[in-house]
Amino acid sequence: MNGKPTLAVVGATGAVGAVMLQILSQHADVWGDIRLVASPRTSGRKLSVRGQETEVVALTEQAFDGVDVAVFLVPDEVSTQWAPVAVAKGAVVVDNSAAFRMEPDVPLVVPELNSHAVRSRPRGIVASPGCATLSMVVAVGALHAEFGVRELVVSSYLAVSAAGQDGVTALRDQLSLVAGTDLGTHPGDVRRAVGDSTGPFAAPLALNVVPWAGSLQDGGWSSEETAIRDETRKILDLPGLRIAATCVNVPVITAHSAAVHARFEQEITVDRAHEILATAPGVVLFDNPGAGDFPTPSDVVGTDPTWVGRVRRSLDDPRALELFVCGDNLRKGAALNVAQIAEAVAVELSKA
Amino acid sequence: MNGKPTLAVVGATGAVGAVMLQILSQHADVWGDIRLVASPRTSGRKLSVRGQETEVVALTEQAFDGVDVAVFLVPDEVSTQWAPVAVAKGAVVVDNSAAFRMEPDVPLVVPELNSHAVRSRPRGIVASPGCATLSMVVAVGALHAEFGVRELVVSSYLAVSAAGQDGVTALRDQLSLVAGTDLGTHPGDVRRAVGDSTGPFAAPLALNVVPWAGSLQDGGWSSEETAIRDETRKILDLPGLRIAATCVNVPVITAHSAAVHARFEQEITVDRAHEILATAPGVVLFDNPGAGDFPTPSDVVGTDPTWVGRVRRSLDDPRALELFVCGDNLRKGAALNVAQIAEAVAVELSKA
Repeated sequence: MNGKPTLAVVGATGAVGAVMLQILSQHADVWGDIRLVASPRTSGRKLSVRGQETEVVALTEQAFDGVDVAVFLVPDEVSTQWAPVAVAKGAVVVDNSAAFRMEPDVPLVVPELNSHAVRSRPRGIVASPGCATLSMVVAVGALHAEFGVRELVVSSYLAVSAAGQDGVTALRDQLSLVAGTDLGTHPGDVRRAVGDSTGPFAAPLALNVVPWAGSLQDGGWSSEETAIRDETRKILDLPGLRIAATCVNVPVITAHSAAVHARFEQEITVDRAHEILATAPGVVLFDNPGAGDFPTPSDVVGTDPTWVGRVRRSLDDPRALELFVCGDNLRKGAALNVAQIAEAVAVELSKA
Repeated sequence: MNGKPTLAVVGATGAVGAVMLQILSQHADVWGDIRLVASPRTSGRKLSVRGQETEVVALTEQAFDGVDVAVFLVPDEVSTQWAPVAVAKGAVVVDNSAAFRMEPDVPLVVPELNSHAVRSRPRGIVASPGCATLSMVVAVGALHAEFGVRELVVSSYLAVSAAGQDGVTALRDQLSLVAGTDLGTHPGDVRRAVGDSTGPFAAPLALNVVPWAGSLQDGGWSSEETAIRDETRKILDLPGLRIAATCVNVPVITAHSAAVHARFEQEITVDRAHEILATAPGVVLFDNPGAGDFPTPSDVVGTDPTWVGRVRRSLDDPRALELFVCGDNLRKGAALNVAQIAEAVAVELSKA
């Protein structure tokens, strides 16, 4: 390829799109033209990227003329319809939706762990995992490379912005309702006060936690829980990995957390786990609870890495480790991972 | 013994004491006199119990004159000092603090699981477990009786009222601060806004979760986490049980939750687990996520049972089950369990 590749950002006017434009303005500039694409409803707006006002064009076949890489930051059904159109026009698609993640001929990529996988893309599509998986898999993958992971139990603490602006608005409305009241001390009073204002969630989130995310699957599992299992197995190339996840929404705006129990093939020590995590790409070790050092969502929101703390070896199993991990679900959990994949694709294209 | 036993409620003016007085007014009346005891600072107040205004007397040796059973709802150091005094005066002490829980000659009792243990009390003291253990152990114990539990991974979602009124006040103050703002979307903005108003917690709880509760133990564990392990082993009489807990404070006023991964000796089925949980004393099965039926803190606050939902068999291990449990940390997690133990002691005394 001659010159820098042209990038299309599909879904530029959404919440993840806004974070993508920030990231594109901050990262080393591997792109030639950057084209902003959105639904006809929001096209025509001007948005700033790399310091330039850029007009958003409507999502049509022509929007992909001359595009080398197209990142899709849109709902599943939009990706399903339009990703093949972009591929047919010659673009490599990097998709943030769930539409293609588990397709066998679509690589599922976390660049810190399996960037090599971008090289084989028979459908012309590379998928980025869901934010619940991305909140913990970079840290787990770093430990796996040394110790060999055999089993994971993941309990998540999911932020509302993963459900989009509707989720954020619902939580803010509910918090205004309960501030200064004695709600939360009698059965059902929060539910009555919130009424129908649960937004995209199955129950009120103010002064509450809600153990449900996604749609109902066989055996009582939620789709978010089976996705963590399926995606982690695919990313780590461990089709037989034992993994049980529980997804719980919590009243946090942005940054997912997870309590992870990881059992490895080999005995582990906290000291060696600390060494690995302290040097792993994309990971920050923040683990000194005696000094108040452990990650919390409000401290890591807006940052790129996966933060890891509360590293403990099981008292009953020298091969098992507990971790508490936090990561920004809009950055590493969405826009950042997609940008990293797109940059890896750009490097591959430059070699062609 | 002739007639009904006399009960002393030590710590009657505290948060758990208030719940105890409600419970004593609701339960079948096994008690003769009920004496309310508190620190000299709050003695002299009149509180209602069983429909009668009753004056609170100061905590002195004389307060235990003629007392058969004394429930202690006070901090560890008050129990350490005063429980032996009550015993020396002839009372059986039922202690809610952590002071005696792990003493080998003090039974640790959850009446649904090991009420027989109240019969042997060489120190004259019976201990009630901590609220984090009580939030899940009734459900786990019921399944253990059938399947034989071998390993537990517990991730908790702890409510602030477990830290007393200071915890509730801190969260309410913080929620008022963030209501109607855009706090929670930039690194550290909640921490800056909350400043020193973290109350008894290690970090802000509004729009946040905090993976720390208690004091630092060997290996990076918190005291709340090792307590769940130690207490569960003692209650279930399984000194070799593998158990790893992670304790996380969440912005909920009252009702603890836990995601529990339980591995059993035998293969299990969800149908049989449902049958057991549906009929276990002190447990309510609430598990139909397709209809929105799963327990959340705001729905179970103020109720007595341990609520269980999200029952799933591991997709990779036919002996492992996932559960989500919720229980009121001031009722079953504290006052109710103490009242149940005291009532079991009263039955024993009536046989003597």
